[in-house]
Amino acid sequence: VILTVTLNPALDVTYAVDGLVVGATHRVRTVAERAGGKGVNVARVLHAHGTPVRATGYAGGDTGTRITAQLAGCGIPAAFLPIAGESRRTVTVTDGGVATGFWEPGPTVSPAEWLAFLDHYGDQLPGAAAVVLAGSLPPGVPADAYAVLVALAQERGVPAVLDADGAALRCGVAAEPLLAKPNAAELSAATGLPVSTVDEARTAARALRGGRPTSVVASLGGAGVVAATAHGDLRAFLPEPVVGNATGAGDACVAALVRGLLAGAPWPEVLARAVAGGAAAAAAPVAGMVDEDLMGRLRKDVVVEEI
Amino acid sequence: VILTVTLNPALDVTYAVDGLVVGATHRVRTVAERAGGKGVNVARVLHAHGTPVRATGYAGGDTGTRITAQLAGCGIPAAFLPIAGESRRTVTVTDGGVATGFWEPGPTVSPAEWLAFLDHYGDQLPGAAAVVLAGSLPPGVPADAYAVLVALAQERGVPAVLDADGAALRCGVAAEPLLAKPNAAELSAATGLPVSTVDEARTAARALRGGRPTSVVASLGGAGVVAATAHGDLRAFLPEPVVGNATGAGDACVAALVRGLLAGAPWPEVLARAVAGGAAAAAAPVAGMVDEDLMGRLRKDVVVEEI
Repeated sequence: VILTVTLNPALDVTYAVDGLVVGATHRVRTVAERAGGKGVNVARVLHAHGTPVRATGYAGGDTGTRITAQLAGCGIPAAFLPIAGESRRTVTVTDGGVATGFWEPGPTVSPAEWLAFLDHYGDQLPGAAAVVLAGSLPPGVPADAYAVLVALAQERGVPAVLDADGAALRCGVAAEPLLAKPNAAELSAATGLPVSTVDEARTAARALRGGRPTSVVASLGGAGVVAATAHGDLRAFLPEPVVGNATGAGDACVAALVRGLLAGAPWPEVLARAVAGGAAAAAAPVAGMVDEDLMGRLRKDVVVEEI
Repeated sequence: VILTVTLNPALDVTYAVDGLVVGATHRVRTVAERAGGKGVNVARVLHAHGTPVRATGYAGGDTGTRITAQLAGCGIPAAFLPIAGESRRTVTVTDGGVATGFWEPGPTVSPAEWLAFLDHYGDQLPGAAAVVLAGSLPPGVPADAYAVLVALAQERGVPAVLDADGAALRCGVAAEPLLAKPNAAELSAATGLPVSTVDEARTAARALRGGRPTSVVASLGGAGVVAATAHGDLRAFLPEPVVGNATGAGDACVAALVRGLLAGAPWPEVLARAVAGGAAAAAAPVAGMVDEDLMGRLRKDVVVEEI
């Protein structure tokens, strides 16, 4: 089973409106809700592809209850630790093809709740094939939280994959996870280096690795991915990028990376699947859903080269 | 006790953001929640002024639970009927002084739930000094719902005050409530007449009355109120209108009208208090809160004249 950790999950609410105007009041045509947060989204993609998964993290209040109920309704195994604070919502207002988002801050986690999560997490690790640590840290959780969670997993032989930002990413990489997957903006922020070209992405990915065993795979949207590994650097991309909805593409990329690595595929194959997974998600009418047939067709077009 | 009926209450959520841009994603700085809907807002103002009140209507799902919990936290007596559907939220995004609103549709009410409300409402009427019927009807409730509720109350000697829109207003007035309080847009929509001047408002208010015993008080924002009654027509206004937040001013106006009428005050005094109440609400830093001292000072400046 692959364990996904989402310390700051969300109830993602989408409002469809006609004609969004700042300063006006709008009747919402339809309301849709789904459990979200990066780790939850990775779990959903893995589950849709038949990979055994369990989602964990914190869930609090009515919103936390709705998050876990929504996952249960989808048949996705979950074991979230209850906390006193209330889990956050995101509200995305869609008007035709334009999405305007509002992200609530997460609940504040107490020191006791952080210690309780370490126990809870430790109970989930036995039998896990890998752990995916993804998304922002809620207020109150220490900045080195991902470093602690990476170390706890890897001490027990469970490889860790990290998808994080800022200090959480920098501290987490120091604990030498199997893999870190920043996007261009996250990679640039974590290293202080520009990441606007493939060459710059390679340089920054190598800088983030810093000679550690950790592989860094940077997702660059339509430009594909750049990987800095202990066995050399690679780029994978689609000659004709898919135009679509980038929401969820990064999470689908992480899901494909984890599946490929656990299957023991060689790096070129792992990266080709990651590019195809991200592109299939971008092409999907519903954010974050990956059509496995489309992913298979796109996979054939991916170009992988050493850089 | 004054009974307020809100068939489509809301959890009013306010998000503060910096720099609202359509098509962008925004971190929400602060989240505030409050029970809302016109009847709930009237109950809050009455309660703040020490008038015994009870709020009723429908409440469903987690959101309904939060609405009733929020009222309980404020010490406002409430007796909402649970329904299977989920009560709605409104989300208002504030960026500096600019408010952009998103109103979810209400839950659909089943025929059995409508019949159940008639029983529930009948149980609340004994001992009520007046009933305030306010706000939109949720889907599934018949268009003549307010006519039925007005008749049930007044048959038992409980005078009814109606604040509604469209067909709900037109049907409700036909049942001859003590008072109807449309704003300019509602009065215009209900009568098909223009309401852009005081003269037009008087003509339209008389048309809505249609010779019934019902008094029609039209709230015209900074232009004050125009009343068409069985004893003649009046206008009340502040020579120097208060500039501020119109949200909640209409509900404060209704609260002042009900208090004045129940106190047996003559029409000029009732209307002067209604204008002062609405203006004090507009001047308040928090929507819908009425400073009674300010209301008293504004009251002295209100001009009332026969028209």
